[in-house]
Amino acid sequence: MAQHFIVIIAGGKGERFWPQSRAARPKHLLPIVGTKPLLTQTIDRVKPLAPAKNIFVITSAVQEKAVRAVCKGIPAANIIAEPVGRDTAAAVGLAAAIVAERDPQGIFAVLPADHVIHDCKAYEADLAAAFAAAEAAEVMVTIGIKPTEPATGFGYIQRAAKWKSFNRRPVFNVQRFVEKPKKEVAESYLASGDYLWNAGMFVWSVPVVEKALVQHAPELAIALQPIRAALAQKRPLAGVLKKVYPTLPKISVDYALLEKSTNVVVLPSSFDWDDVGAWPAVAKHFKPDAAGNVSRGLAVVEQGRNNIVFSEGGHLVTVLGVDDLIVVQTADATLVCPKSKAQDIKALLKQVEALKGGAKWL
Amino acid sequence: MAQHFIVIIAGGKGERFWPQSRAARPKHLLPIVGTKPLLTQTIDRVKPLAPAKNIFVITSAVQEKAVRAVCKGIPAANIIAEPVGRDTAAAVGLAAAIVAERDPQGIFAVLPADHVIHDCKAYEADLAAAFAAAEAAEVMVTIGIKPTEPATGFGYIQRAAKWKSFNRRPVFNVQRFVEKPKKEVAESYLASGDYLWNAGMFVWSVPVVEKALVQHAPELAIALQPIRAALAQKRPLAGVLKKVYPTLPKISVDYALLEKSTNVVVLPSSFDWDDVGAWPAVAKHFKPDAAGNVSRGLAVVEQGRNNIVFSEGGHLVTVLGVDDLIVVQTADATLVCPKSKAQDIKALLKQVEALKGGAKWL
Repeated sequence: MAQHFIVIIAGGKGERFWPQSRAARPKHLLPIVGTKPLLTQTIDRVKPLAPAKNIFVITSAVQEKAVRAVCKGIPAANIIAEPVGRDTAAAVGLAAAIVAERDPQGIFAVLPADHVIHDCKAYEADLAAAFAAAEAAEVMVTIGIKPTEPATGFGYIQRAAKWKSFNRRPVFNVQRFVEKPKKEVAESYLASGDYLWNAGMFVWSVPVVEKALVQHAPELAIALQPIRAALAQKRPLAGVLKKVYPTLPKISVDYALLEKSTNVVVLPSSFDWDDVGAWPAVAKHFKPDAAGNVSRGLAVVEQGRNNIVFSEGGHLVTVLGVDDLIVVQTADATLVCPKSKAQDIKALLKQVEALKGGAKWL
Repeated sequence: MAQHFIVIIAGGKGERFWPQSRAARPKHLLPIVGTKPLLTQTIDRVKPLAPAKNIFVITSAVQEKAVRAVCKGIPAANIIAEPVGRDTAAAVGLAAAIVAERDPQGIFAVLPADHVIHDCKAYEADLAAAFAAAEAAEVMVTIGIKPTEPATGFGYIQRAAKWKSFNRRPVFNVQRFVEKPKKEVAESYLASGDYLWNAGMFVWSVPVVEKALVQHAPELAIALQPIRAALAQKRPLAGVLKKVYPTLPKISVDYALLEKSTNVVVLPSSFDWDDVGAWPAVAKHFKPDAAGNVSRGLAVVEQGRNNIVFSEGGHLVTVLGVDDLIVVQTADATLVCPKSKAQDIKALLKQVEALKGGAKWL
């Protein structure tokens, strides 16, 4: 039987949870929700699915040190730093090469590091079913998240007829992938019941991925060859990655492989899921006070409702007479922003970058 | 000729400019406007009016150390700490006793420590005229501030007919003192042109004050006797103040003496004046950016107008997508509050006080 592997993609720029998150300390390295960094929570969640030696983390050079610090129990060699970001198709190609070197028939899951999932049992069972599906046929299994609202921030997967069941979980053929929709379109998707959120969770075998790369992304498949050679010769990866990565096309795995493949299936998730995209999404994971305020650290809110107040290091953050505000204080920087404007944080960070010595806050 | 003295009243609780101000570091000890503490600015302003040995500062025990640190050039013995606060009548009585010991006919000005005045020349000339008036007759000279808006936060002085001029500055008899008015009443005061703001600035001679104390506040006059005795015997004041002060009635000089006296006159000010009562009043003393934001320290505002953003210690405070907000960050505490709610800071500080170890932030 083919071995099972987990590849956790731990990338991200660290902008949306600024000032807690930074370029070298993005969301998955923070306990945005819970007490452990989201990456550590993800590792804990997948441990029942594969032995530690089969769990890999792909991260970026700038985050490598911090990532290693929170990946206790994972072999050091299993943490791979991309020298430059080349989007998810390159990361999946790299993952396939690494897994192939361990087991040419290996089946691996690609999972984001920074999602919040509380129901670990359902998550484990869904992924076990996805592994079973990927073992049973030459398919690309996507985990589709059942939408709870007409979100416009995610891509959607339209399911077609039911294909099969695995462990009593139905798996469907895929009609199509669709990009982030407008509100009205998202509402029709939600109403139809046929659409699932694409959360970037995939399970597939090495041969299926290799074949898709050759067929749909031949340039990438060829460019990855020196990495396969280095792995075969047991050479350290750092040197070859540094040479090869800058030459790789920057393209998402959705666009490069999934949208072009006809053997894609989708397993609708049965677990709770939240990608916690920005500060406003954090609130629902905290217990609010009687006025709907959530806080971490030393916070006082007077005459205010539904605020998010985070403080660090024993600093006292006080909010008086205002609603729906986000206040996040860290040792060297503070953000004050209405929940409704949190999506404009990039514009703010451009101004911060322009400050004298501004890079130190990014 | 009688000597001239200046008595600066440096009290205040340090609530309205929290978290920059604290009980032991109230407004007059901060450079709320300008680069020096307001008390230091006040001392600098009165230096042309009296020699340093004739300038006194009356403060409170909790602030004494910090006050001494910013009163460079004033003799140490001239800084007197009240062991407990007993409002302004007690402070004026104490001031009269101290001045009397230097010159029984001395004329002294009582001035608040925490006002912002830029036109020092006009201030000096107005006070010189007030000293001349207090020298010329047995009057209590008040400096009345010409109102610029129908303020409801000040008491008013209604002037009567012109009494005399000093140094070409007209001085008027006083019709009456009135408490803080309602808005419509304040508007009628502003329209009439006969009303001036009572800014707590008085010039008078020792005999005039002593006589008024005996006549209108005999209990206070008697209670102060041990202080006069200690001064006459050159004993240190601290001991006797500690004994006497708790027994003194807590009453304002306006209520105890001025409202009851018939020899009160008013000199309308010719200088600019601002008591900078709370954070929102600070903005007009700073140069705003193109969007009306004012800041001190490291601040970035994106998509926001008319905000006040103060930071300390190289900490970066960022404000995104909000208008008319006050954000004040200090080493151990931060305040976030709309300008319109700044008057409710006392309610916030009650919550802070209730925190475990909350007193350390007050």
